[in-house]
Amino acid sequence: MTIAYPQMDFELPAGFSWAGIKASIKKNGKKDLGLLAAESPCAAAATFTQNKFCAAPVIVSREALKAGHVRGVVSNAGCANAATGAEGLNNARDMAQSAATESGGGGDFLVCSTGVIGVQLPMAKVQKGIADAAAVLAPTREGFLDFAQSILTTDTREKIASARLTMGDKSAVILGCAKGSGMIYPRMATLLSFAATDVVIDPALLQQIFSRVVERSLNCMTVDGDTSTNDTAIILANGASGLEIWAGSYSERVFEEKLLEVMQSLAKQLARDGEGATKLIEVVVHGAGSFEGARAFALDVANSNLVKTAIYGRDANWGRIIMALGNSNLAFAPANVSVKLGPLELFHKGTPLPLDEEAALKTLSQEFIRIECDLGGAEGSATAWTCDMTEKYIEINASYRS
Amino acid sequence: MTIAYPQMDFELPAGFSWAGIKASIKKNGKKDLGLLAAESPCAAAATFTQNKFCAAPVIVSREALKAGHVRGVVSNAGCANAATGAEGLNNARDMAQSAATESGGGGDFLVCSTGVIGVQLPMAKVQKGIADAAAVLAPTREGFLDFAQSILTTDTREKIASARLTMGDKSAVILGCAKGSGMIYPRMATLLSFAATDVVIDPALLQQIFSRVVERSLNCMTVDGDTSTNDTAIILANGASGLEIWAGSYSERVFEEKLLEVMQSLAKQLARDGEGATKLIEVVVHGAGSFEGARAFALDVANSNLVKTAIYGRDANWGRIIMALGNSNLAFAPANVSVKLGPLELFHKGTPLPLDEEAALKTLSQEFIRIECDLGGAEGSATAWTCDMTEKYIEINASYRS
Repeated sequence: MTIAYPQMDFELPAGFSWAGIKASIKKNGKKDLGLLAAESPCAAAATFTQNKFCAAPVIVSREALKAGHVRGVVSNAGCANAATGAEGLNNARDMAQSAATESGGGGDFLVCSTGVIGVQLPMAKVQKGIADAAAVLAPTREGFLDFAQSILTTDTREKIASARLTMGDKSAVILGCAKGSGMIYPRMATLLSFAATDVVIDPALLQQIFSRVVERSLNCMTVDGDTSTNDTAIILANGASGLEIWAGSYSERVFEEKLLEVMQSLAKQLARDGEGATKLIEVVVHGAGSFEGARAFALDVANSNLVKTAIYGRDANWGRIIMALGNSNLAFAPANVSVKLGPLELFHKGTPLPLDEEAALKTLSQEFIRIECDLGGAEGSATAWTCDMTEKYIEINASYRS
Repeated sequence: MTIAYPQMDFELPAGFSWAGIKASIKKNGKKDLGLLAAESPCAAAATFTQNKFCAAPVIVSREALKAGHVRGVVSNAGCANAATGAEGLNNARDMAQSAATESGGGGDFLVCSTGVIGVQLPMAKVQKGIADAAAVLAPTREGFLDFAQSILTTDTREKIASARLTMGDKSAVILGCAKGSGMIYPRMATLLSFAATDVVIDPALLQQIFSRVVERSLNCMTVDGDTSTNDTAIILANGASGLEIWAGSYSERVFEEKLLEVMQSLAKQLARDGEGATKLIEVVVHGAGSFEGARAFALDVANSNLVKTAIYGRDANWGRIIMALGNSNLAFAPANVSVKLGPLELFHKGTPLPLDEEAALKTLSQEFIRIECDLGGAEGSATAWTCDMTEKYIEINASYRS
């Protein structure tokens, strides 16, 4: 399996403009302020962090979403505007207001921030940045790439995915981008993720579909088990393609499938580009009784520092997978458990099998590692994604704020 | 605060002999087989791992404990005898039986193993090792130090603590040792820990006291959030001092206090010597409503990779502490939360305070780091211990099995 990123063959939905510029909020001089603006009001849906210290922009965006329709999104990197009290909340509201005013379309803007927690936004820089970004908003590939880059923090590259739906004579596009890297462990929503589409859809239906899709994409990945204060995943639908999505129809099924494809691609790109990562790890669990149970087991394995360091070291120390499964809060029968690493069965119904060290080393030398655990039940499967854990993760996080 | 280890001023309880020898189970040529034998039957109490893949020796020791009295403990490092099926269970029983036979005292032995999961014990080496150890059993400081060293894996040093109780003309000692390092996150019990005392006590009362003490010592520390398959904490009381402990009496209170002192000292030594650690981190939580709630919050902070790497990097990135608290499953009011790092208040009732970077750097340059979180409730305090997270943790765990 290859993870094609940066995905250079993405397509643009009609009716959206983008910009990403340098506002000097980040100290490294990279792009740090992005604008996404639609030509017309959009149906909007989102999922947010479950962290109880949710950031000011999360509170403001949640309020704005209640209207069901929004006009765009403003986002900054370098400062999370989280744990910033009343001043932070005012700053997030000002940011959304400025974006609405400067981009000229009217209507509510959603607002997102990512970066250091507990520091106030440099509002003069933010205001100038929003004006600068509004001046270069463009419905182009370059504009979108700038936007996708402006949301990054310790990410090493942008994450982009798109899909096209065609029905009859109408054709629409779903385009998404995301940032991740560290403090990434989804609980109902995760990180920053933006998707835009030109289908025609009711906001309530869009929220239902988006929530289901997030459960099986972003909520199935983890970098380090730490859920961010700022996690936000947003989708905007502006209707520009004329392709209509109706509840309970074939169009809903196809749209959901295509959206899942886009969001799962972003989830895998996010896992592969976790802080310090060298490998993408896919953990598949079968026979756990339900999707939710299987996902919990898969995430228990994916969150184990010991599993992740062993894979980094190309060490077929599968006992750590067993250890991680055994620590789950959920019940299962150890004697029914089997574990595979890539094509190699290591543990069969509770008993270790002889290990072919050479074959294991070959499997573990790939960039993509697949762990498959069968708990012996009749149903209940899920897949989770994570990355290996390396010295570089420590290096990045021992010096992130400085 | 200094963590005195190796603690060279420990005292020995009467009536116990110890040995620790090299049986070539570990590849690095260090001591790897230990025997602890009492001159007379002992009241015994223990707590074991909650991991569902609990190791064969855990199953065998649990059975042996039902009798209430045992004669000693045999322990090996280098192979965990976990996830080893029926063969592993037979090996653990044989190990306990050999220890009982070779040490000549009769009566049941408890058995413990630690090391790689999913590999069978080299039984010829184990049997010879037990015979060799039995031949050198001695009631001496040297014998005990050999035992304390024989249980180590990636630990860099032995963990030892002792306390003396005197009542009237009777005087008794509690002596403990433990191994930890990695795959350390207590859930009801943790790692390998052995305590021996010469008080006179009923096994049921000993179990009650020991369970309470473990909840406030070993079960308040974590290295990496991964609960081992082999966790076992044992205490043996042989009565040799004649000092009697009675339920509900002053003697019970004093014994429990002294035992807590010994076990908390071991917990702190274990945290300080976590894999790759350079610092001991103490997380104190107040105002969480209950001890259990406070401990859960404290362990959420102590288990965050991001908090631990920031402290390693001497980075006063306290937003990560806030993030970790906010991810707890328990309810609290973010606006009432205050956070201190050593003597410095960083966050007061939901609002960030100006950070004195110089003072923070000085605080974070110590070997002992104290984080204090007040959730604003009237009661409910707990303390947890962990270590910082460094490149060395990755290095150790990317190559542990090889």
